[in-house]
Amino acid sequence: MTPLGKMSSVWLTSVSVFLLLLLQQPPVDGELFTALADMEELLETEAVLITNLDNYVQAQEEKLMQLRQKMHEYRREHTEAARDVSAYLSNPVNAFLLTKRLTTDWRYVENLMTYEVGKEFLENVTAYRSVLKFPSDEDLNGAAVALMRLQDTYNLDTASLARGMLNGVQYSTELSAGDCFELGRQSYLNGDYYHTVLWMREAMDRLTSEVNRTATKEDVLEYLAFSTFKQGNIQTALSMTEELLELVPDHERAVSNKAYYVKELQKEAQQKILRGDDGSEEVPVDTTTVRRPRWFRG
Amino acid sequence: MTPLGKMSSVWLTSVSVFLLLLLQQPPVDGELFTALADMEELLETEAVLITNLDNYVQAQEEKLMQLRQKMHEYRREHTEAARDVSAYLSNPVNAFLLTKRLTTDWRYVENLMTYEVGKEFLENVTAYRSVLKFPSDEDLNGAAVALMRLQDTYNLDTASLARGMLNGVQYSTELSAGDCFELGRQSYLNGDYYHTVLWMREAMDRLTSEVNRTATKEDVLEYLAFSTFKQGNIQTALSMTEELLELVPDHERAVSNKAYYVKELQKEAQQKILRGDDGSEEVPVDTTTVRRPRWFRG
Repeated sequence: MTPLGKMSSVWLTSVSVFLLLLLQQPPVDGELFTALADMEELLETEAVLITNLDNYVQAQEEKLMQLRQKMHEYRREHTEAARDVSAYLSNPVNAFLLTKRLTTDWRYVENLMTYEVGKEFLENVTAYRSVLKFPSDEDLNGAAVALMRLQDTYNLDTASLARGMLNGVQYSTELSAGDCFELGRQSYLNGDYYHTVLWMREAMDRLTSEVNRTATKEDVLEYLAFSTFKQGNIQTALSMTEELLELVPDHERAVSNKAYYVKELQKEAQQKILRGDDGSEEVPVDTTTVRRPRWFRG
Repeated sequence: MTPLGKMSSVWLTSVSVFLLLLLQQPPVDGELFTALADMEELLETEAVLITNLDNYVQAQEEKLMQLRQKMHEYRREHTEAARDVSAYLSNPVNAFLLTKRLTTDWRYVENLMTYEVGKEFLENVTAYRSVLKFPSDEDLNGAAVALMRLQDTYNLDTASLARGMLNGVQYSTELSAGDCFELGRQSYLNGDYYHTVLWMREAMDRLTSEVNRTATKEDVLEYLAFSTFKQGNIQTALSMTEELLELVPDHERAVSNKAYYVKELQKEAQQKILRGDDGSEEVPVDTTTVRRPRWFRG
């Protein structure tokens, strides 16, 4: 059992605490503080990670600043030389400066380029895994489930939840398309296609207005199409798969799913005539090869 | 012989070409074009290096931009959480967001941090050494000697040369303290202490007004003191060495040189009385461990 193994139970407690707070009553659950203490440790982990990332970025920026400065100097002098090469090079001062740039100066630029600044912060990245508390994938799933239980219990509108608004009150940050995608993906992993469709639709809506996209249309469409099919709407699943194929024509799973959906629709049409059943056991290709949102252009 | 082995002879030709240009006469020397062609190849080398450096800097900047953006998002949300930890964490949306940040999101930040962008441009740095023409250290020395020959022939003032001005005409870029230091260092390597003193003094003058220093006072003082001694001025060499020791108290060569200078001055004083000679063969510690200017804070 990992140090955070018991955390999955935290989420249920969290929900009740949230509701208690909403009702302005003091918490009475004795388990609450343990649960919050676990979560608080995660905040401490986050603080350390942010500081480390900050240090890394600063070290890299200082190196880049020096390289940029050298590059501008080189370029300025080089442009000057290119204007009249013969005249420039016939001047012994320029000849010396060019030779110096390509010997001693360049050796420093090379050293600076190849010198790994911020190496210690990169090493921290690996080291932190063993010393800091991180939530597990199960914790992430638990957090998503807790959120959807709340949504169901109080019949909360997905779009309002995603805006972080309830009854006109801002109770959390707005969720990104990537956040909604992750909620949908967690529902998908639990075989909960109803919530998958709700959250993937929300992800798609949010995607259209995002400047720095936090999910890809392809990923959202893939989950959306398959979950829609699982809910029995083959016609819509087919249109979504066709939309996906317009974006990624050689999408392997989409190609075979499209063929399957077409066949199923034909069968349905035939069944309407025959009122029979051929007892076929074919199933569409599953998308369980879960992929991560690609918010970075790595 | 390196492909550029014959380049050392280029400088003499360059000087005459420069003078020809000054006199507004067309060049007549048949060797000129070969020499210029060699130098032009160096300009081509420089163009390739600048482009490669530019690409490297751009790739790094893009990576840093993404990391900086993620860091700001993390920090904003973390600060929000720190304002009221219990309230923040009791909200299932926030609890989900925190867990997501520390699982899927953080994995991407880690990947991006450890991903070596611009690796191909770093590899070019080494590869270019074998495919592009670079000047040798002898070429650098030849270029320095050619410049000083011009200085002597026309009795040119060091400060004006360093400003790139002659008779009120700007004929080259202004030299940095580092450029002057390199001219002094090349003279030193040739045992030419007269020019070493001239150019190291100029380097020192320029250093005082430089914001981004291109040489260190310590390096300049060390060459200056020893060359001043070599020219017979022990008293000044001693003061310079003491100035150096104020900056770097444990400077090994300076410590032993100071002791030597003091002893020599005592001997001189005695000799004035005795008008004799003890025939000592002691010599001060040489500074032939040539060091590079440290213009970068690596």
